[in-house]
Amino acid sequence: MSTWISRRERLMRQFPVGAVTLREVGLRDGLQMVRQYPSTQQKQQWLDREYAAGVRHFEIGSFLPASRFPQFADVREVIAHARKLPDTYLAALTLNERAAADAMTEPVDEMIFVVSASEAHSQANTRRSRAEAVAMLQRICTTVKTAQADGASTPFVSAGIAMAFGCSLAGDVQPDEVLRLVDECMEAGADYIALADTVGYAGPRQVADLVTAVRRRIGDLPLGVHLHDTRGMAIANAAAALDAGANMLDGSLAGLGGCPFAPGATGNVVFEDLVFLCESMGFRIGVDIDSLIQVRQILSEAMPQEPLYGGLARAGLPKSQNWRAPSGASETLTA
Amino acid sequence: MSTWISRRERLMRQFPVGAVTLREVGLRDGLQMVRQYPSTQQKQQWLDREYAAGVRHFEIGSFLPASRFPQFADVREVIAHARKLPDTYLAALTLNERAAADAMTEPVDEMIFVVSASEAHSQANTRRSRAEAVAMLQRICTTVKTAQADGASTPFVSAGIAMAFGCSLAGDVQPDEVLRLVDECMEAGADYIALADTVGYAGPRQVADLVTAVRRRIGDLPLGVHLHDTRGMAIANAAAALDAGANMLDGSLAGLGGCPFAPGATGNVVFEDLVFLCESMGFRIGVDIDSLIQVRQILSEAMPQEPLYGGLARAGLPKSQNWRAPSGASETLTA
Repeated sequence: MSTWISRRERLMRQFPVGAVTLREVGLRDGLQMVRQYPSTQQKQQWLDREYAAGVRHFEIGSFLPASRFPQFADVREVIAHARKLPDTYLAALTLNERAAADAMTEPVDEMIFVVSASEAHSQANTRRSRAEAVAMLQRICTTVKTAQADGASTPFVSAGIAMAFGCSLAGDVQPDEVLRLVDECMEAGADYIALADTVGYAGPRQVADLVTAVRRRIGDLPLGVHLHDTRGMAIANAAAALDAGANMLDGSLAGLGGCPFAPGATGNVVFEDLVFLCESMGFRIGVDIDSLIQVRQILSEAMPQEPLYGGLARAGLPKSQNWRAPSGASETLTA
Repeated sequence: MSTWISRRERLMRQFPVGAVTLREVGLRDGLQMVRQYPSTQQKQQWLDREYAAGVRHFEIGSFLPASRFPQFADVREVIAHARKLPDTYLAALTLNERAAADAMTEPVDEMIFVVSASEAHSQANTRRSRAEAVAMLQRICTTVKTAQADGASTPFVSAGIAMAFGCSLAGDVQPDEVLRLVDECMEAGADYIALADTVGYAGPRQVADLVTAVRRRIGDLPLGVHLHDTRGMAIANAAAALDAGANMLDGSLAGLGGCPFAPGATGNVVFEDLVFLCESMGFRIGVDIDSLIQVRQILSEAMPQEPLYGGLARAGLPKSQNWRAPSGASETLTA
């Protein structure tokens, strides 16, 4: 069996067909723009308590210069701590080759690289073109697979397509452009793709259409969707994404995280509300919502100025039992 | 042509097949629980400015004892004012026969009667059983149709099924029970049905299943869905309802309105976000979102303690053009 096959099999074991994976991105995307941030110890508590609630997939931090992003200066300690918790899956943001090289010295399961669907945003955000970004992704993937061929344990590489549903600089983003980039990223060697509504422009029909088209190209591979709740559409978009075949969704505890391209905007889709949504749709997530809500206390203490969002935290679980749909199927009415 | 046919034709003209109607319920449901409320003049401004933004369907008030609900004491003046605006459709809440008799002396287009899907809630909220509520609905419908046969201009009667997706007192509500009540209300003479998620228990799959089942029973008649955003699911539930064939959705400006059975809960689904959702799904609403957002100012001034919700008010419209999907169809990708 070739190395490639076993890599894919390893991937599919992490993201099994028919199941939905939720990733808590608060420790990275949630902290991207905050001025005050949790201590390393508070991050470890955050991880421990979410782990106890059942969370296994984390975006754990970013490999960025500590001088500019002090909130991620302790990324190695946080990874080391999370690694002690059995069966965690740890993804780190690696926006360039240097970051990827750093991440490869750490026990992470996935490196997240980002290509913008908008040329204007690509230039503004990273000072490189989309084509240069894809070329960089290819070099990173080649490095990873060379290391793997040498017998090293190597992380997966995912390609996030930023601004996939519209761009605050360029306006419209054509779906065909996104599909072309999806193809290019897969050809460059990415293990899987995630579509990001970076500035919260999407509605559920747009999400359904694009997810359906991408799913058609990638077969059973994981398909991620990263949503921001800028205009209150994130949960509706998540439902549409799941219906259309996405099986990996990002969210952050309490919706932590803003967006540098949408000043004043709310952050990521609320993780605990996403758990509720998935369970209500018949996808078993294995996370205890009440325990998860308790973890917000750490955020309140560490970042008292950050607004915390979320419907479940506000209202609690329903008193009914059947809000949690039977696994795998719509409720069947007799009439 | 019989009177019955023309009544139905009149109804279908208000709620045409293939179109979606959004009703602004802030002036009734939005004010149900507030302690401080707008003056009659402020209500009139609220109406005028929403009308200028393109809103035509209003829940305008409630016929309740002014001693207990002073916020609706001016309902007749508000109706008279709204009636001067061409092509408005005015619905009033009429929870008993006395209220219905009062409403029938006013130029309203619709009386909203409520039957709870939960026996416990029916008793707690109205001190009558569901069967008694259906019997009362039947008497009201008979009165209306007798008046119509005598040549009077009479309002439609809609039956709202409260707690249709779960009950904060009884817990689960069986879909079959809801369908039985839908049948009973239609047999009692209701012109059409609305399903209410009174305490925000529903998820989108549950909404889709129940709306599909009700749609199957009622043919082309209007089918309303009344959602509360208690757990942040309202927009997702609205999208699911529209996909499943609902064509009348309630919402309130800024999500105004709480719920007596869910203390501290947020209110109705945000009307302006609902407009955005519908437009993004290809349903033309004819409401200018920017103008609508400006109307929130009246709420801030009249009720400074009430929290105002909403994603569009927070973030504004996207800079893209294609967030508004082409009318009537999903976006078509070339690949």
